Amino acid sequence: MSERYRRGIDIAERLASDKLAHFVESGVAEVAPDFARMTIEFAFGDLYARDALDLRSRELIAIAVLAASGRAGPQLRIHVQSAAASGIDKAEIVEALMQTALYAGFPAALNALADCHDLLTDDDCLGDRCG
Amino acid sequence: MSERYRRGIDIAERLASDKLAHFVESGVAEVAPDFARMTIEFAFGDLYARDALDLRSRELIAIAVLAASGRAGPQLRIHVQSAAASGIDKAEIVEALMQTALYAGFPAALNALADCHDLLTDDDCLGDRCG
Amino acid sequence: MSERYRRGIDIAERLASDKLAHFVESGVAEVAPDFARMTIEFAFGDLYARDALDLRSRELIAIAVLAASGRAGPQLRIHVQSAAASGIDKAEIVEALMQTALYAGFPAALNALADCHDLLTDDDCLGDRCG
Amino acid sequence: MSERYRRGIDIAERLASDKLAHFVESGVAEVAPDFARMTIEFAFGDLYARDALDLRSRELIAIAVLAASGRAGPQLRIHVQSAAASGIDKAEIVEALMQTALYAGFPAALNALADCHDLLTDDDCLGDRCG
Amino acid sequence: MSERYRRGIDIAERLASDKLAHFVESGVAEVAPDFARMTIEFAFGDLYARDALDLRSRELIAIAVLAASGRAGPQLRIHVQSAAASGIDKAEIVEALMQTALYAGFPAALNALADCHDLLTDDDCLGDRCG
Amino acid sequence: MSERYRRGIDIAERLASDKLAHFVESGVAEVAPDFARMTIEFAFGDLYARDALDLRSRELIAIAVLAASGRAGPQLRIHVQSAAASGIDKAEIVEALMQTALYAGFPAALNALADCHDLLTDDDCLGDRCG
Repeated sequence: MSERYRRGIDIAERLASDKLAHFVESGVAEVAPDFARMTIEFAFGDLYARDALDLRSRELIAIAVLAASGRAGPQLRIHVQSAAASGIDKAEIVEALMQTALYAGFPAALNALADCHDLLTDDDCLGDRCG
Repeated sequence: MSERYRRGIDIAERLASDKLAHFVESGVAEVAPDFARMTIEFAFGDLYARDALDLRSRELIAIAVLAASGRAGPQLRIHVQSAAASGIDKAEIVEALMQTALYAGFPAALNALADCHDLLTDDDCLGDRCG
Repeated sequence: MSERYRRGIDIAERLASDKLAHFVESGVAEVAPDFARMTIEFAFGDLYARDALDLRSRELIAIAVLAASGRAGPQLRIHVQSAAASGIDKAEIVEALMQTALYAGFPAALNALADCHDLLTDDDCLGDRCG
Repeated sequence: MSERYRRGIDIAERLASDKLAHFVESGVAEVAPDFARMTIEFAFGDLYARDALDLRSRELIAIAVLAASGRAGPQLRIHVQSAAASGIDKAEIVEALMQTALYAGFPAALNALADCHDLLTDDDCLGDRCG
Repeated sequence: MSERYRRGIDIAERLASDKLAHFVESGVAEVAPDFARMTIEFAFGDLYARDALDLRSRELIAIAVLAASGRAGPQLRIHVQSAAASGIDKAEIVEALMQTALYAGFPAALNALADCHDLLTDDDCLGDRCG
Repeated sequence: MSERYRRGIDIAERLASDKLAHFVESGVAEVAPDFARMTIEFAFGDLYARDALDLRSRELIAIAVLAASGRAGPQLRIHVQSAAASGIDKAEIVEALMQTALYAGFPAALNALADCHDLLTDDDCLGDRCG
């Protein structure tokens, strides 16, 4: 296990109570184990680990870019949970998703809000208990 | 209730027998009530309300751009119904979706046609009765 | 010269006083002559030639989808001219480009309007004289 | 039945044991029979039929571009099967999907690998038996 | 002049020393004066004006989503300047652009960094003096 | 200098006579030196270095995905040169770009062919001498 991987798993676990690491490792790790490892190493071990931007800022960027792309539902749901774990409150998450309408159109923003409906309305969701 | 909102709801209802307004208001309104309102106000109260383009033209544009984006299934289905409500017949809707293959590739056009299969084949669908 | 090609060139010329056909044939024809031919055959000889949608509707779709894509400047400029040639007036073209903000965001609509600035402001442009 | 169509069906069947042709013909053929035919004619009868690129290369391109687009799941699944039928082994398919992360981001690559999980892990899948 | 417009212009000017407002108003205002106004009203007067997210967070989102889209150069350059004006330092802006590689691929991130090269290296640029 | 970086630079230089490495290192290295290094390490040192896919296949994928994206002109030009350096002849490159029309539409393919016009027509270009 490389130092980059160990550092990446640490950050992923801090952000999402295992969900991020688990997601990358489960389905994908069966098909492409090296890629699961490389994703953890590069995304979290290399980039997220850098001090130049705090985790709150990184998660704001993650949810906004994923929502705007309109095609990354599973990643958006996980990062909405990571965003909450890094101290962004629900009203801020909703507002960030709303703002993507400016750059990517209303359907992207509306569908992102709908895809995360349970995470954003159910108080029990944004800790640890929803998918 | 703003004048922009009232005007927007009027147009949305005329186009889609409540479906458009309902879609924006239901799921999204629970998570982001202000955004549901702003979508109605801006999309329908401001833009659609302008006389410079008739509703038939606006709906042609809506279904083509949504199909070409390849990532706005719920909106495409609603606007296919609005297109029919604004006087575009089924053969024209199909043809508009086909044309998007030129600009956005064959998968976008094929998937748009498949996503709206029931709306475009079932005679009972394009009035008021399908989802 | 296939029947499809002849029919395609006819329509392309009617729409854009040679600009469409010329564009496809010039630069691209030097690198990929078969693809220049196939584009004319399929886009205009096959699709545009179908009666199910009138040319005015086809050009509305073309400019809206191209503007929304945000990455097809040369094609957008030519189809704005074809749109005018097929009887869509300037105010309608502007309005169609504005509407794409709803589905693809404000930058796409703003940049489309800026890219076609001369075509949409200069009276001499939307006949035959601008690039 | 045009010569282009016959040639296209031949290639589609060779690549995917009917799956490609069947996909285009079934759902889409009910809504838009002419478009189903035109897709076979143009995609396989015109482009794939050209000798300038072998089928293995064409299928590598198909799976990579479809995965990178992040919005063409049904087409990706079929072409992963065509890729196998044209002699690309599973490890190469996985590697091609991984490489798309460079150009289209990690979510596109991760979701493509997840969408084709069964095709890439189940030995019985990449012949003829999975959807 | 509507209250929404006045509020929007205020925010746009605070963020970018007139550049944002000027951009929307100049070229676009000649072609589509109503759309220039509506953009200021909606983007800044409605959305940015909301307290739910501070301007620093909004500008982080703006530069990341615009960079990830890979097709909004003029808007990216202006928002990089607004980001600086809202208190995001250069190292953070660079880091935010780097992070988009994760979600949108390396070319989007590399081209965003190259497009803003002067703004991010020239000390005189990120006040008020570069285009 | 990490082993990953050394390996990455080696491959980048073999593919494009320094162009790839130079591109990443020059403009970007001034603004974001760590990202220039990370791109070489990850793209070439990690991914391209893997044996599971030969360089010819990797370059086919690179040019097709970049062309299909319609927004990565500089990267496309460099990889067209790398494709030639890895043994793909001009007719195959042209054919690969043509095929992207199927998945991403005709404008993407036409603009890719136009953007690489000099590289694909001038015999002196696809060695070492054009930008």
